[in-house]
Amino acid sequence: MSKNGKIYVVGIGPGKKADMTFKAYEKMKNSDIIVGYKTYTDLIKEYFPNTEIRSSSMMKEVDRCLEVLDLAKAGKNVALISSGDAGIYGMAGIMYEIINENDDIEVEVIAGVTATNAAAAIVGAPIMHDYVTISLSNLLTDWELIKKRLELAAQGDFIVSLYNPKSKGRATQIAEAQKIMLKYKSKDTPVAIVRNAGRENEEYEITTLENMLDFEINMLTIVLIGNSNTYVKNGKIITPRGYEKKYEY
Amino acid sequence: MSKNGKIYVVGIGPGKKADMTFKAYEKMKNSDIIVGYKTYTDLIKEYFPNTEIRSSSMMKEVDRCLEVLDLAKAGKNVALISSGDAGIYGMAGIMYEIINENDDIEVEVIAGVTATNAAAAIVGAPIMHDYVTISLSNLLTDWELIKKRLELAAQGDFIVSLYNPKSKGRATQIAEAQKIMLKYKSKDTPVAIVRNAGRENEEYEITTLENMLDFEINMLTIVLIGNSNTYVKNGKIITPRGYEKKYEY
Repeated sequence: MSKNGKIYVVGIGPGKKADMTFKAYEKMKNSDIIVGYKTYTDLIKEYFPNTEIRSSSMMKEVDRCLEVLDLAKAGKNVALISSGDAGIYGMAGIMYEIINENDDIEVEVIAGVTATNAAAAIVGAPIMHDYVTISLSNLLTDWELIKKRLELAAQGDFIVSLYNPKSKGRATQIAEAQKIMLKYKSKDTPVAIVRNAGRENEEYEITTLENMLDFEINMLTIVLIGNSNTYVKNGKIITPRGYEKKYEY
Repeated sequence: MSKNGKIYVVGIGPGKKADMTFKAYEKMKNSDIIVGYKTYTDLIKEYFPNTEIRSSSMMKEVDRCLEVLDLAKAGKNVALISSGDAGIYGMAGIMYEIINENDDIEVEVIAGVTATNAAAAIVGAPIMHDYVTISLSNLLTDWELIKKRLELAAQGDFIVSLYNPKSKGRATQIAEAQKIMLKYKSKDTPVAIVRNAGRENEEYEITTLENMLDFEINMLTIVLIGNSNTYVKNGKIITPRGYEKKYEY
């Protein structure tokens, strides 16, 4: 029997306890150590005053996972946290990549509420139909591939959720994305811009594809772009699923 | 001040309490009545023994929302539940559609863990990169549009999550979807087939695009199809995000 510890890759959701799953909370609470990017450990440390918490800086994902692996090999149960869902652009992949076949370490991914889900819930019901999620960060992905995906998503009349739309060093991509969307989607397509979804300072605007660049968009923003049926009513953004074709009401 | 009740559209996640958020649980617990499709109310009724629960049959989405609206107008706080996230192919949209501007009813959507997220966590880390979610149900959407979206998703090398892949009356779509995927994706692309994710009788297989039809696929199945970088290791399906290009380890 292995005396290695177990690794839980935990999606914490937006950050507040209210938006965590019971399982995510329990796994963090019962781990010997919680490890994560400092922005995320800062969000949750108040809920686990008696647990050791180790923070690391951004861009240190590989080092963070190697540290987690070492801790597990030393017999510790470790919760490696991601905001949102650890399985969506989160830490689950890199953790599995780093573990070797003969490491004999058990890994469990605990799903969470993603940024897209949290943002959608705030602005109404924009994602009632087929949708794509695209990160505009070209740190790990070629910009040409990202552009191609934007093009295909717009052609398919998908609802589009944009992650990492803008950062300090990367300001032009969101304008290029808008331009690509406008080739296929109406300029009046409803767009929701949600900053800090589910966190302090949560803010959002509902605007249109044409006017979306008039609002603040930063690294902590999710941009949701509707499909051809999306509309705005009572300040909420709604994509009908199609019941009105089927039933009368 | 309105004496109307409030409507909470609650995503319960896969169904177990462990996978609910604290907020979802609290909203259900504190509502006067929980309303939902019988399959879902059956999943959660044990957690709320003191709350009135009303079930309705499938295909009765509009009637269900009208009933919820009537209850709220009668001063009741109502939790209308969806499995997964109420904002992803769930009840949030139809609820908002039905409420009129002068109804003076407050609606709040409580996000949850979606079926895609739950399925992904079970099989490893398949969704570490841009992905699309497509429902193969042509009950409310033309099959031609669904096929076009499959085509574009495959062209864009997106990870693909298929909802409602098959039902009793609808058996051929999944084979057509596979054929479209094979036009652009390698026959060796890893595919995860997850039945009853997060529920009793949870089962999954990891296979390939070529062989995916050899396994049981039904209405309660999520089919996850990788991108060109997805691979299988130690029985887990992993889509690398691209750190290996950036860092050595």
